[in-house]
Amino acid sequence: MNLLQGLTGALGCAKGTAVVIDNKTAVVEKKTISNGDDEVSRLKEAKERYFLQLAELEDHAKREVGEKGAGIFAAYREILSDDVFFDKIIDKIKAEKVNAEYAIDVERAEVVALFEQLDDEYLRERATDITNVCMELIGEMQGVKKGIAFDSSMGHELIAVAEDLTPADTIKMDKTVLKGIVTETGGVTSHTVILAKTLGIPAVVGLKGAMSEIRTGDEILVFGNEGKVVINPDDKQLTEFESCRELEKKKKKLFETKKGLPAVTLDGKMIKVNVNSGDSDSIASFRCDECDGIGLFRTEFIYMDHKQYPTEDEQFEVYRSMALKNQGKELIIRTLDIGGDKQLEYMDLPKESNPFLGYRAIRICLDRVEVFKTQLRAILRAGVFGDVKIMFPMIVNLEELLRAKEILEETKKDLQAEGIDFKKDIPVGIMIETPAAVMLSDKLAEEVSFFSIGSNDLIQYTTAADRMNERVQSLYDSFNISVLRSIQLVCDNAKKNGVMVGICGEAASESKLVPLWVAMGVDELSMVPSQVGKVKYMIGNLSAAEMKKTLDDVLNLGRIEEVKSRLADVEKKILG
Amino acid sequence: MNLLQGLTGALGCAKGTAVVIDNKTAVVEKKTISNGDDEVSRLKEAKERYFLQLAELEDHAKREVGEKGAGIFAAYREILSDDVFFDKIIDKIKAEKVNAEYAIDVERAEVVALFEQLDDEYLRERATDITNVCMELIGEMQGVKKGIAFDSSMGHELIAVAEDLTPADTIKMDKTVLKGIVTETGGVTSHTVILAKTLGIPAVVGLKGAMSEIRTGDEILVFGNEGKVVINPDDKQLTEFESCRELEKKKKKLFETKKGLPAVTLDGKMIKVNVNSGDSDSIASFRCDECDGIGLFRTEFIYMDHKQYPTEDEQFEVYRSMALKNQGKELIIRTLDIGGDKQLEYMDLPKESNPFLGYRAIRICLDRVEVFKTQLRAILRAGVFGDVKIMFPMIVNLEELLRAKEILEETKKDLQAEGIDFKKDIPVGIMIETPAAVMLSDKLAEEVSFFSIGSNDLIQYTTAADRMNERVQSLYDSFNISVLRSIQLVCDNAKKNGVMVGICGEAASESKLVPLWVAMGVDELSMVPSQVGKVKYMIGNLSAAEMKKTLDDVLNLGRIEEVKSRLADVEKKILG
Repeated sequence: MNLLQGLTGALGCAKGTAVVIDNKTAVVEKKTISNGDDEVSRLKEAKERYFLQLAELEDHAKREVGEKGAGIFAAYREILSDDVFFDKIIDKIKAEKVNAEYAIDVERAEVVALFEQLDDEYLRERATDITNVCMELIGEMQGVKKGIAFDSSMGHELIAVAEDLTPADTIKMDKTVLKGIVTETGGVTSHTVILAKTLGIPAVVGLKGAMSEIRTGDEILVFGNEGKVVINPDDKQLTEFESCRELEKKKKKLFETKKGLPAVTLDGKMIKVNVNSGDSDSIASFRCDECDGIGLFRTEFIYMDHKQYPTEDEQFEVYRSMALKNQGKELIIRTLDIGGDKQLEYMDLPKESNPFLGYRAIRICLDRVEVFKTQLRAILRAGVFGDVKIMFPMIVNLEELLRAKEILEETKKDLQAEGIDFKKDIPVGIMIETPAAVMLSDKLAEEVSFFSIGSNDLIQYTTAADRMNERVQSLYDSFNISVLRSIQLVCDNAKKNGVMVGICGEAASESKLVPLWVAMGVDELSMVPSQVGKVKYMIGNLSAAEMKKTLDDVLNLGRIEEVKSRLADVEKKILG
Repeated sequence: MNLLQGLTGALGCAKGTAVVIDNKTAVVEKKTISNGDDEVSRLKEAKERYFLQLAELEDHAKREVGEKGAGIFAAYREILSDDVFFDKIIDKIKAEKVNAEYAIDVERAEVVALFEQLDDEYLRERATDITNVCMELIGEMQGVKKGIAFDSSMGHELIAVAEDLTPADTIKMDKTVLKGIVTETGGVTSHTVILAKTLGIPAVVGLKGAMSEIRTGDEILVFGNEGKVVINPDDKQLTEFESCRELEKKKKKLFETKKGLPAVTLDGKMIKVNVNSGDSDSIASFRCDECDGIGLFRTEFIYMDHKQYPTEDEQFEVYRSMALKNQGKELIIRTLDIGGDKQLEYMDLPKESNPFLGYRAIRICLDRVEVFKTQLRAILRAGVFGDVKIMFPMIVNLEELLRAKEILEETKKDLQAEGIDFKKDIPVGIMIETPAAVMLSDKLAEEVSFFSIGSNDLIQYTTAADRMNERVQSLYDSFNISVLRSIQLVCDNAKKNGVMVGICGEAASESKLVPLWVAMGVDELSMVPSQVGKVKYMIGNLSAAEMKKTLDDVLNLGRIEEVKSRLADVEKKILG
């Protein structure tokens, strides 16, 4: 039997040559040393080198997989900074005159044994992290650059097979040849899964026996959707794989063809499919012909690229060039949303115990009025070069919105007085991303021309679950019924007041949810460019009226799994 | 003119002898030193001593004013731990061979000047904090125990008058003689105000000229409600003060008489007025005859008082003795709500970026099933000694509630099998403290016998504003209309399902809000014992039906100030 059954890690199917990576069995010998202090210095130097490597990998990861994926390296650095843990190791070295590698390994084993006793999946995952950190540190001390030779020299379609992959392992691999991932350990919250999903690489995890069953050089099929792996497939299995891959390819192609066309439901409702933008990469790669506009233009990067507040002209240039690139299509510029997980040294923001519940976004702008006005001037001036709109983030009451609008009016007056050209009738909207804004959306609607539902933050605040915190990842769920009901309420209040409503979080392009959004009556969905084709295809193949029944049923369900299963059926009908 | 007008700091009126505290003018001379390293050591030692003092004061404050008030000292310690700031001072000492006091003062002045330039009230307040820390540190270096002799040797009714009072100043004062506070600086977010409110001491702040107008020994009247101070009052002013104080006293007495009686509205609706309990002090002082029961019994203290998980029997003893003390009245025991701002070393909880949005309460209990079952066994067993109910905190979806109930059933089966006596039909309820629970309250209601709305957390999550973070204090508002609408929705869903509904956060006893809660149809309000009399008096003097109109109006307002002003009128009518 050449078929192994594991768990779904990341979707998609892949074929390639297996590379079995034995990254766990560092040989640690016990040695007697003469000078404890020297040995401690050796340990500290290795720690420092490894720490710096992690920092570099984090930078690398940020570029490759974004903030969230890169968070793993911070977690590793935190383990490395655990003084209680390393003090014990140092004590051991000094007291027992043993080599550092041995001391590390003994302490590691103790902690891991402790964690594994506890009936707690999360802590078991963290035990894996601690082992990884210790093994990589020991490797660093031994000068063994494990550096799995995982690159094009070994083939052009490779499947990594390992007991577990450290984030460092994964980030270091050449992504042009890494086609799939198979690991023995790792559940749904493992770092491997998070990285694989982010990289779009099919993965099967929790596959016991993978290391013994699979040998380097084996031909491997990975069926991510089913958590299935085939070793040295026979013809029938290969045919099955090829048809699966063909289908995936065909769909991908089909989706591509939809990018440039308007998305209209079967019953004639047009929905804008916009993209999110707001960093140098996304701006450079922006293609105005492959979407209906920019639904969320984040402006933080301009502030982060500077050593002090960017000037009005510096901002104006960015906004103007984006407006021009966008060729008259909608461009929604969100005012500064700094704070939370994004910090800027020159802004001298307070350290906070709960930054996501802290001083951020409009809260800062309403305090630092001059900073705010500078941005508003730049946006107003750029407004004459396109269909520019302005959007305020993190509103939790009417007062904030009215005050922001007041400052906008003052800014207009200033520009007018100075004889500077600007967009006088610039439309104003707000993000709906707090439960407070949801509950007050009827009143807020009276004061704006559009809403954009920021589902990422809204899920986070509604479920009281930090979206960067793995520990509560299972609660941070786009399918949470309370979140869906909240979005429905916002859509209803928007409709009643003739206000346009869109969604700009990750949920906007979740294919199981797209039919719901259409049924709720959204006018716009904004997402990463790679999802535009798929979403447009879906919209073109569903009827809003028909989906209304599904929507009513779903909002009346009690369990999230029921919601997902119901929506999976709908998705399958539309996507095939 | 002996009348000074400032700002309301804390409510109430007070009379006493002024003690003018000149705590700002530490004399800092520039001296040349011979050995920079010695001077740096002197600085470091003083810093360490001061740091320890702050830690002690924090402990003291925790007992006197609770977690929130004590947070100030953590802020001070943070300033003291600012290495960037102190490294500059150390550099200066070494480079310029100046004494530490001088170096501190120069750097302080620079930072403060910088902060004061910024158009930002909050940063200006923080500048005051930095000055306070620096001045206290300089005092520590000079061996000058400023220690304002503010105690009964100076009189038995004293009013502290200062430019600003540091939290240390305030905490150190003898509260049996401190009757009022007057400061020149300090806005609504100042530490003085927070402490004064918590201590229940009338305070007027922001009173320019107080230091020059008032002399130690002056007779002073403080009208906290109006932000007014009278120096050496004439007879008319004294009469006015006395009648003001009489009224306050009379009301207080009147409220006292209501404590033991049932609270019934003018139109005949009885509402339970319960108390919150759950620490050694509140248990020791608990008086069953002065309330209708215990609406929230927090169990964290049992876990915090132990070096490891408390045993079943240890918990059982606490719950049983509370049930007995409560003499058959309602006792709602909340299962462990650790995490968030409460940490326990032996639980080995992860460090989190946003603990309030992290791994806490039921989230931990559903993972650590054995820990949870131990607590449930203890509660079930104690149940036979009174009207004990069980309450789960932090629910965000139906699955959590069902799983918690499943574990409860398993626990009952275990007890049954072991032949141990327990309360078989123990009522189960949940806290409604997340927006997710609000939006799903119809479904949740089908599974419980009562709701208790935890307004503290609910406000925090709804407005995305950390209630411990001064920076966003103005957004953390019990009168936020979205929060009020959320509570209304929960009450409606509770009524529809025949589920009892209560409120147990601080908002439960906010006298402007009590009429709203009654109109919404709450069955129970739970609060600190000191508020029971007032709330019972209010309930007895209003009609639920009449308040319904106010409720409808208020929920349809847009601005929070309008809500407050409308409710202030209602409050005045009821309380006089």
